[in-house]
Amino acid sequence: MSNKETELYRLSAVEVVSRIQAGQLTVEQYARSLLSRIEARDPVVKAWAYLNPEYVIKQAKAVDAVAPQDRGPLHGVAVAVKDIIYTKDMPTQFGSSIYQGSAPEVDAASIIILRQAGALILGKTTTTEFAATTQGTQTTNPHDPSRTPGGSSSGSGAAVADFQAPVGLGTQTGGSTIRPGSFNGIYAIKPTWNAISREGQKIYSIILDTIGLYARSAADLDLLADVFALQDDDPVSQPFRIEGAKFAICKTMAWDQVGKGTAAAIEKAKELLEAQGAQVEHVELPEVLNGFSEWYSAVINSEGRTAFLSEYRTSKTKISSQLIGQVENKSGISRAAQLVAFDKIAAARPVMDELIGQYAAFIVPSVPDEAPLGLESTGSAAFNLLWTVGLPHSIPDSHKDAKLPY
Amino acid sequence: MSNKETELYRLSAVEVVSRIQAGQLTVEQYARSLLSRIEARDPVVKAWAYLNPEYVIKQAKAVDAVAPQDRGPLHGVAVAVKDIIYTKDMPTQFGSSIYQGSAPEVDAASIIILRQAGALILGKTTTTEFAATTQGTQTTNPHDPSRTPGGSSSGSGAAVADFQAPVGLGTQTGGSTIRPGSFNGIYAIKPTWNAISREGQKIYSIILDTIGLYARSAADLDLLADVFALQDDDPVSQPFRIEGAKFAICKTMAWDQVGKGTAAAIEKAKELLEAQGAQVEHVELPEVLNGFSEWYSAVINSEGRTAFLSEYRTSKTKISSQLIGQVENKSGISRAAQLVAFDKIAAARPVMDELIGQYAAFIVPSVPDEAPLGLESTGSAAFNLLWTVGLPHSIPDSHKDAKLPY
Repeated sequence: MSNKETELYRLSAVEVVSRIQAGQLTVEQYARSLLSRIEARDPVVKAWAYLNPEYVIKQAKAVDAVAPQDRGPLHGVAVAVKDIIYTKDMPTQFGSSIYQGSAPEVDAASIIILRQAGALILGKTTTTEFAATTQGTQTTNPHDPSRTPGGSSSGSGAAVADFQAPVGLGTQTGGSTIRPGSFNGIYAIKPTWNAISREGQKIYSIILDTIGLYARSAADLDLLADVFALQDDDPVSQPFRIEGAKFAICKTMAWDQVGKGTAAAIEKAKELLEAQGAQVEHVELPEVLNGFSEWYSAVINSEGRTAFLSEYRTSKTKISSQLIGQVENKSGISRAAQLVAFDKIAAARPVMDELIGQYAAFIVPSVPDEAPLGLESTGSAAFNLLWTVGLPHSIPDSHKDAKLPY
Repeated sequence: MSNKETELYRLSAVEVVSRIQAGQLTVEQYARSLLSRIEARDPVVKAWAYLNPEYVIKQAKAVDAVAPQDRGPLHGVAVAVKDIIYTKDMPTQFGSSIYQGSAPEVDAASIIILRQAGALILGKTTTTEFAATTQGTQTTNPHDPSRTPGGSSSGSGAAVADFQAPVGLGTQTGGSTIRPGSFNGIYAIKPTWNAISREGQKIYSIILDTIGLYARSAADLDLLADVFALQDDDPVSQPFRIEGAKFAICKTMAWDQVGKGTAAAIEKAKELLEAQGAQVEHVELPEVLNGFSEWYSAVINSEGRTAFLSEYRTSKTKISSQLIGQVENKSGISRAAQLVAFDKIAAARPVMDELIGQYAAFIVPSVPDEAPLGLESTGSAAFNLLWTVGLPHSIPDSHKDAKLPY
């Protein structure tokens, strides 16, 4: 008997779907296994902002009761949901004391789509305040509790890595999906901006916020991507061959922050690809991106000025100084500067799309190094900002087979 | 005794605030007057998707009970709210049978800000389906019930014009705020995209959706704008003088749709300005905007493809064929075409900002002509699309005094 027989919680989403379909597993059995894992590990990992075991079992039984012909592609797959995404049957607290116990009976569009596909919404996972700050939550890195799991999608990243859920929803405005994905050693995808509806997800920056997906395998991400209709223009006709393909490695403007772990990983990626017959080039960012850090800062601060005005007006004492500073525009970003930043980023998009379109994949670091020690900070998003802001904002037409995270 | 003594519902928001502050009026008295107006006129105008008179009075009494030192700048001002904006104490039904009776207990950011400023949320006003279609609601134009009030903000436009509320919230993705503003003969402003948080407002297109404001005077719009912190970079120091100022009139690419009414109004505007000593120039759109209609169509259809996937999956028989077509991408817009459209629009922004920045104001038609006969269609948004898409997406720095709609 393999580990997976006794430890059902270790199954991938694809395996869960397959076993339930074959009549070898019930959703309730699977849910009970996940709950036992959570019970055992939660005192250390602390990934959950809300989880009600009795309600999970009740839901699992309801999913089991769905007639075979009405079952969806995610039938029985448990999902960890970041707590800035509305769920009609659980509180949504945004990592903020202002919303403690708040539970509007409404599902985000992403949750409606997941439930309709047969998913079991397991619970809500921890997030930094409004997914907007880098001050850590209580959640620890499942590989080493003295380290951060990253953020702001701290709980979803840690829960998926720790086998407490096979897949999870995160969000990203800076590096909030990809960073925890890397720190927790799991697969993460930040889809193209607005490829998945962000209805019912707390807004920080309209032009940056994106839902992100977590899993422990590429196949599971593919399953989720299909449920969310993340389709390319044309179906992929040929299997992709690494041999003879051309890859780019781009160190970006954040390379001065890189540590030994990331530097070695990038070098290893180059070696592995070349060993398979690929051509790998180091590529510099185009000059049109000089000034990017300043533009990003202008955009995020200006959008925060709008986003948190309501909380500022009603509950100023309960929001962090970072957000107060944004609403009060303490960094003094003029509307004119916001406009310039927005336009400069927009002008850089086609240039980057053109550059990236020349390669089978564009390989960039996800994080400066392994997860930092301590839970105070969720780490640096320096390597993520460029891609969050929509560069590229779509997968180039010439590379329709590139479904995985760039 | 003037009309306004006997007909309190005719007061402007500024007058309401002033009278209540002076102790000459209570919120309850004012609310009762509005309710009597609504009772008398609703059988014809039908502007409301939800209105509970008893609850309005209960709220009014609560606002009256607020201690003078805790009163906000909108104390006692009644607001008509388009029914795609969440209100925690009323249903939010999006003009869709899918959401009939749906009432999640959550306020949109705009509603939180209004309540905190002392406003009385009167009720929810009709909207076309998800504010996304042009098929008319039951609401009639208060000036002529055989004509449309426009849409999609049909109810807010009609209610404000008909003295059923002094101010209202609309939204705009195509021409949904400005068009009803014009057809109903009231003042409307579509603020710069994301200048007001759209948290809790149904999403159609992330990059187009904007909250809009209605009133019956510029002073009332100014009051609302202040509450929403629609501030320019620097305070206006000098009163604006029309004499010697330079204005542009732009007929846009939609001029072939213009009717006699709009053509005469534009000509009249030119005459009036010139009579006051202004310089008025006819300005052509720059070549960079050739192709705009196609880009707009690609953007809105692609965003609809994402926005309505959840309703499509759960309730396909209850959504209109237009939205089904968008989700199924019946117009065959590729991801690559969406990308090109997005980039072309972005590239045109700085060009338009530069052009518009040369004038004190840029005068364009709001609608092709007066409100069309019949309630089937809410009319054409042809003159609005260019400005909804963010051209300009901010008021140029050199014209900080231009607070009113362009």
